[in-house]
Amino acid sequence: MLVAALEVLADRGLAGFNMEAVAHRAGASKATVYRRWRSPGELLIDAMDTTFRPFPLPTTGHLRSDLVQLLSTFQQLLDGQPFPRLMAAFIDAAERDPRLKSLHAELTERRREPLRRVLIGARDRGEIPAAADTELAVDLLAGPLFYRHFVAHRGYPEDYVTAVVDHVLSALGCAKSE
Amino acid sequence: MLVAALEVLADRGLAGFNMEAVAHRAGASKATVYRRWRSPGELLIDAMDTTFRPFPLPTTGHLRSDLVQLLSTFQQLLDGQPFPRLMAAFIDAAERDPRLKSLHAELTERRREPLRRVLIGARDRGEIPAAADTELAVDLLAGPLFYRHFVAHRGYPEDYVTAVVDHVLSALGCAKSE
Repeated sequence: MLVAALEVLADRGLAGFNMEAVAHRAGASKATVYRRWRSPGELLIDAMDTTFRPFPLPTTGHLRSDLVQLLSTFQQLLDGQPFPRLMAAFIDAAERDPRLKSLHAELTERRREPLRRVLIGARDRGEIPAAADTELAVDLLAGPLFYRHFVAHRGYPEDYVTAVVDHVLSALGCAKSE
Repeated sequence: MLVAALEVLADRGLAGFNMEAVAHRAGASKATVYRRWRSPGELLIDAMDTTFRPFPLPTTGHLRSDLVQLLSTFQQLLDGQPFPRLMAAFIDAAERDPRLKSLHAELTERRREPLRRVLIGARDRGEIPAAADTELAVDLLAGPLFYRHFVAHRGYPEDYVTAVVDHVLSALGCAKSE
């Protein structure tokens, strides 16, 4: 059912996303869909979540390469499909519906978690200064990738992720750790 | 007519944006709309452009405060309406239509120009290193603001713009200039 929901969303965008279309695509009845999800919004959240779940905490043991690994996974998601189309539909939905906005915020919050943990771990080990603003660092790391795909539509230059990581680490006041 | 187009887009999103709705809102005939724009996509570009045009090059004479001034203008746009709703509709449209994507890319390109000129001016004056990657710097400056609004939905903390500018300048390897 979630696969059907994602297909409908990727094909038609938010405008064509409703319980009937998802039921039709899944070869199920509308009642079956409503048994599990009370609204298209809730179904959308679960479907979006499914595309993202496997995001393991990196274990290279080095701050720089951990960050490069995490951001490279982001970049691959943004370079492929259906993630960007779903994300774009979600951005539009969040702007128009406060409930979807807060659910999208929660989803992003979970997605920020591995970056945050890697940074906080490094701060605890003294690899970045104790006063480093790790929340801002997460924005500085993740922001350019999203901006470049959805706003600038410019594609990623060779070694973009590494350049972003090195600039942010330099801003946080730590030497490259490898 | 452009005002009517913006109202339709902000109210209904891309799904409800068509020549008929814009003509109706403007109290004009569809033929009048088609006389000036060949497609809803072209009308959308002009309408989007209108919301953005007045974006003067800052003249504080200092790199840091020029950047703070430019990013503060961005932040105000993102904190108000209708810019974010239009932008969200545009992000969704660009993901689904290659022509709108390339037009959106051009629009963003013009929007990046003041940031780029401020950075290049500072580089020419030796305020940031000659090897500084000004294109990446533009991404690092603009990205977090868009990401925070459209993806993280977190609002801007006090002095967010200044913190972003200071981190990016520190990453570029220059001392604060004020």
